[in-house]
Amino acid sequence: MSDDTISLGPGREFDAIRGFLRGGRLPGRVRIGPGDDGCVLEGGWVLSTDLMVEDVHFRRVWLSDREIGYRAAAAALSDLAAMSASAVGLLVSVASPRTGVDLQALQAGVQEAADAAGAAVLGGDLSRSPGPLFIDVAVVGTSHSPTLRNGALPGDEVWVTGSLGAAAAAVRVWESGEEPADSLRRAFARPPFRTREAGGLAEEERVHALIDLSDGLVGDVGHVAAGSGVRIVLEPPQVPLVPAAVSALGFEEARRLALHGGEDYELCFAAPPGVVNPGRFEAHFGVTLTRVGRVEEGEGVWLDDGDGEPVRAERGGFDHLGGEGAG
Amino acid sequence: MSDDTISLGPGREFDAIRGFLRGGRLPGRVRIGPGDDGCVLEGGWVLSTDLMVEDVHFRRVWLSDREIGYRAAAAALSDLAAMSASAVGLLVSVASPRTGVDLQALQAGVQEAADAAGAAVLGGDLSRSPGPLFIDVAVVGTSHSPTLRNGALPGDEVWVTGSLGAAAAAVRVWESGEEPADSLRRAFARPPFRTREAGGLAEEERVHALIDLSDGLVGDVGHVAAGSGVRIVLEPPQVPLVPAAVSALGFEEARRLALHGGEDYELCFAAPPGVVNPGRFEAHFGVTLTRVGRVEEGEGVWLDDGDGEPVRAERGGFDHLGGEGAG
Repeated sequence: MSDDTISLGPGREFDAIRGFLRGGRLPGRVRIGPGDDGCVLEGGWVLSTDLMVEDVHFRRVWLSDREIGYRAAAAALSDLAAMSASAVGLLVSVASPRTGVDLQALQAGVQEAADAAGAAVLGGDLSRSPGPLFIDVAVVGTSHSPTLRNGALPGDEVWVTGSLGAAAAAVRVWESGEEPADSLRRAFARPPFRTREAGGLAEEERVHALIDLSDGLVGDVGHVAAGSGVRIVLEPPQVPLVPAAVSALGFEEARRLALHGGEDYELCFAAPPGVVNPGRFEAHFGVTLTRVGRVEEGEGVWLDDGDGEPVRAERGGFDHLGGEGAG
Repeated sequence: MSDDTISLGPGREFDAIRGFLRGGRLPGRVRIGPGDDGCVLEGGWVLSTDLMVEDVHFRRVWLSDREIGYRAAAAALSDLAAMSASAVGLLVSVASPRTGVDLQALQAGVQEAADAAGAAVLGGDLSRSPGPLFIDVAVVGTSHSPTLRNGALPGDEVWVTGSLGAAAAAVRVWESGEEPADSLRRAFARPPFRTREAGGLAEEERVHALIDLSDGLVGDVGHVAAGSGVRIVLEPPQVPLVPAAVSALGFEEARRLALHGGEDYELCFAAPPGVVNPGRFEAHFGVTLTRVGRVEEGEGVWLDDGDGEPVRAERGGFDHLGGEGAG
């Protein structure tokens, strides 16, 4: 455990966040400062925050108000999972247009996610908004030994939970004017937060680095590579896709979204070969584990299609609701 | 110290917050749940959050980006003061229009407030906004014995730090198309956060109930009255006004804003007669302390002008930027 600020991956969006988190010395009671999925305080308390903005991260016509609340809470809870922390509480700030949003339904969605995580809504703030609906959820949890993103070692394997690209596929279908299949819609509207699974991984497997997938697999393993000072080689043929995404968008686009799409809120981790037991994990949690790559000496994120030399991955290429870099 | 949710005062805005914070059982590691200025976790950690929205809480033409950041952080830090907690960290979520906001300047303002409080920026999130600028600051601090709003007793005196109504007066002047005097502008742009003063009060004086003044004196002492199950009688002739507010708006309006204006971020507390030493406090902190009322048996907030029976106070009557209830 180090007090050092952990490096973020490359990219303009990360530059902005990095700039925002540049700062002074950490107070003595802070064990881990900014740069990972959450900060860690004395006593093992883990804090993080996640912001969701209408027409940047979602459109109101896609989701019920209850789903909007659930999704905002789930995305924040996923940051606790990424630290292998168990959830304790949420602080929920909402700026809402004067009409059209049912705040009680939104609150019910937040509460449902909190209940499912064993957490409570501990506070918040409420304002009207003269523009879009904004929801910022700060979460607090506890971990005796948080799993960070800076511990991946050459020789490790890279694993993901579940399947990737479904939430991004739902957005793609909605933006084309269609209605996504149930499995895609659900991945977007009610994303997972794998706090239980992360706790299990941290306890039972020797996980070196852990992260949740919010920016897309390539972008997020870029954080692990930068934080750990290693090169991560992803093997795209191994990345688990969602059949409905392939049906709706074709294999190439489904794979592209699985690599770059973001907002899956699945876990991704690096562990030494031989320590991960996918069968036991799936039997226990009902969630698949798939090996999707490997850690080597070097830097950056590389793609290995199995038919030649790995090529350096281009970052990004996906922005949910148009424009450059939704953030 | 009780796990009970503390009653909020009357009013529609408080109904909405109350509804949002209605919820289930508190996890074992939560010592005090929602309803006060912050929640309290095992180990004495105090959390709170404060949301600031452009054209609801401020206009961008009034403030520099640095001041916007400073003010958002100061308002959140003031909630820690209201719990007599010392500040440790901030999580800063910003949704910003694509152009026109200097995020580095905004961050410098947040950092300046954090530095002044001895706290660090520990995390955050960043998004673009298709509408107004939106800043949510979650704060974490520590207190061995937080001072709540539910401990006022009949016979107590009610005190405030500093002078009241200057920030609201600045808004009134700006909204009339003029430029406020420096002292008014500064009260709005760089509000105090009295964490040191609150720590001093909690240690040296026997303070029964403590709150910060964000909704206006009448509204905020309403929380204390409701939480403590008492009646609070304010004595308007005692309420300290800012000379520049009287010059700009006249005595009656300056007094009205001091009672109802909000966003002063001064402290208000109830303490037994004879224990408060304003001279020592002012010598130590350079901030005045003024007795502005008393606690009696009963309920609600009352005004005693000294020339007859106290009358029940009407709540609110002030909304910064037009419309009903800025929130």
